[in-house]
Amino acid sequence: MREFKRLVPYRKALSLLLNDLEEIPDTEEVSLDEALGRVLAEDVTSPIDSPPFDRSAVDGYAVKAHDTFPAREYNPVELRVIDEIRAGEESRAVVESGTAVKLLTGSKMPEGADAVLMQEMAERKGEVIRVLRPVAPGQNVAKRGEDVKRGQVILRKGQVLRPQDLALLKSVGFSKIRVKRKPRVGIIVTGSELVESLNEDALEHGKIIESNSIMLKGLVKRYFGEPRFYGILPDEEEKIRSAIEKARSENDIVLVTGGSAFGDADLAHRFVKLLFHGTTIKPGRPIGYGERTFVMSGYPVAVFAQFHLYVKHALAKLVGAKNYETRVRAELVERIPSQLGRYEFVKVWYEDGKARPIKRRGSGLISSLVESNGYIEIPEDSEGYLEGEVVEVVLY
Amino acid sequence: MREFKRLVPYRKALSLLLNDLEEIPDTEEVSLDEALGRVLAEDVTSPIDSPPFDRSAVDGYAVKAHDTFPAREYNPVELRVIDEIRAGEESRAVVESGTAVKLLTGSKMPEGADAVLMQEMAERKGEVIRVLRPVAPGQNVAKRGEDVKRGQVILRKGQVLRPQDLALLKSVGFSKIRVKRKPRVGIIVTGSELVESLNEDALEHGKIIESNSIMLKGLVKRYFGEPRFYGILPDEEEKIRSAIEKARSENDIVLVTGGSAFGDADLAHRFVKLLFHGTTIKPGRPIGYGERTFVMSGYPVAVFAQFHLYVKHALAKLVGAKNYETRVRAELVERIPSQLGRYEFVKVWYEDGKARPIKRRGSGLISSLVESNGYIEIPEDSEGYLEGEVVEVVLY
Repeated sequence: MREFKRLVPYRKALSLLLNDLEEIPDTEEVSLDEALGRVLAEDVTSPIDSPPFDRSAVDGYAVKAHDTFPAREYNPVELRVIDEIRAGEESRAVVESGTAVKLLTGSKMPEGADAVLMQEMAERKGEVIRVLRPVAPGQNVAKRGEDVKRGQVILRKGQVLRPQDLALLKSVGFSKIRVKRKPRVGIIVTGSELVESLNEDALEHGKIIESNSIMLKGLVKRYFGEPRFYGILPDEEEKIRSAIEKARSENDIVLVTGGSAFGDADLAHRFVKLLFHGTTIKPGRPIGYGERTFVMSGYPVAVFAQFHLYVKHALAKLVGAKNYETRVRAELVERIPSQLGRYEFVKVWYEDGKARPIKRRGSGLISSLVESNGYIEIPEDSEGYLEGEVVEVVLY
Repeated sequence: MREFKRLVPYRKALSLLLNDLEEIPDTEEVSLDEALGRVLAEDVTSPIDSPPFDRSAVDGYAVKAHDTFPAREYNPVELRVIDEIRAGEESRAVVESGTAVKLLTGSKMPEGADAVLMQEMAERKGEVIRVLRPVAPGQNVAKRGEDVKRGQVILRKGQVLRPQDLALLKSVGFSKIRVKRKPRVGIIVTGSELVESLNEDALEHGKIIESNSIMLKGLVKRYFGEPRFYGILPDEEEKIRSAIEKARSENDIVLVTGGSAFGDADLAHRFVKLLFHGTTIKPGRPIGYGERTFVMSGYPVAVFAQFHLYVKHALAKLVGAKNYETRVRAELVERIPSQLGRYEFVKVWYEDGKARPIKRRGSGLISSLVESNGYIEIPEDSEGYLEGEVVEVVLY
């Protein structure tokens, strides 16, 4: 049996991988209703000033601020109301000294006015209002272009679109937007011991229910991709070889689980010309990558670590996504020893600014993933972290 | 014009709201492929031990550990290989003292064996292996039930399902799972000044492009709901009244924007019997709630704050969701003054353990939401936070 002669350092393998993959050029135009969570394909510039005109921020009276300067409760200033704007309409009146126009929140400012007096600061008597307090020029007015200016870049390429991003796009007139095509990700699971579902008889005879595919499908969806499952394959050379070929021809990248070590039944790595095979990460050491194909472990915890440490970044590169991770600071409530020379992926529970390592470390313990909500990365040159140290946690 | 006589404290209004709403009893069974992000409707118990049998964690030889205790490189112990397990198969052989069974990672342990010797720790010569090092009982064996035990609660009601949760469910035999029905959320936008899309002529005449609906649809989807948009309504009493009635009859809750203040054109609050109206939150003060209906502001920033401070928690209550927020600790890089008596919603940019307040505060500035990735809540009795203080940030 072969063994890994030398493990490739984590970051070196990552940069080999990211250099090997190119951003997908394909884009597609989608309606804003379909754009949530998609990745913006290009910088977006506003075609208009927003708001498109000076408008009132309150219900009240458009006035010349100068008229109100002497106004006090004991010495009100009187102004004549020359027009009233109803919701969604505008006034053609021109506010001159001594006059006012009644308007509503959001109304376009009439010509001549430079401030809005809040309704409750005026006493209305027929055609006349008594102004009880002064207003400053610009007060209660939302200026044209105060949100965004025409020609301004309002969102950058690579932005993962959130509800407020869609609102900004809509507010300046977009109904559709150009996003990156979702990367197509083929998923192949190998292992003659794996079955698709519960069958007491099968379980009694040394079989295990396969669970990597549902996990990988979910992870791929979370990180911008479109998963396609090619099924569970037995450890048979020809079947694995042809499935990898088919998946590679139909997808941007391919994930193969259960074929990465050098065990007798680990075949997948033989059919892929690997750029690297065996890295310093723990768990997940036997990961290999080449020809747009990831040859991953069979154990779910190792697969999960391999996904977060490598595949996630590859997917982000394929779509050019920015800010796709939530990295936070946390105080460790327990020390974490780490092996020198290994890049450790340590599952933690993050809460209230503190991180608690999940100690159960077996690669088969899916329950340990369920008990965690993030991970810490411990580089090769570190022997770990002490209780009370502040560390970076990547939340998932 | 009426005014708010007294603002209801934020937490009091929130508890009035949450006490008024009941968790939706409806559940549905979905395949694991459709379950990502859904909310688990009940505690889930494992029907099996997982793994279902003792199995090997490595490729190697199943042995009686006791046999190997004297083994040293200079003094190997010889064992006779009585069977070889191929991938996905099992052995009917019984390991007795002096014998071994060759197996693969994941193979079911044969009877009689209590440890696995890694392949590279043995020298094979025909039917015989020379053991170079001792192994301890249990070494390289994944014990039956070591991940989860039969009858153990593996996931709790209210869990928002993540990829690893689906993997655990699958690994113990589930192919479908019972989740909460998505809350149906009617969205009504009011305002005669609002138009659906860009039209230079309309914009010139005091109209504004409506953007609350796309934002609310996105937020509702993020927080477990199914949004249904009832369109933009002019400020006309009868239209708003009948739309609210219709939406209420077809949805679990209804969000109405632009009708919450006491301005001349703010009608919606008149048709809903409100449990509270006007709370201490800033921005978003005029929010009202009653009869499963939220009467919200027209300004996007106020609507966004109202959603996060009230509607999000209501949606979580409707489905019984737990852990639906990401709250992290951050060091403030700038002081934030806050008005006594107001519960301030302050947008921030969180990065590298630090939070920077977004200073542009106008309620119409959607771009200020885009520049932020979280918020800080400042209670009524606080005058704000100092530079360098550690605060809690809710990420979005």
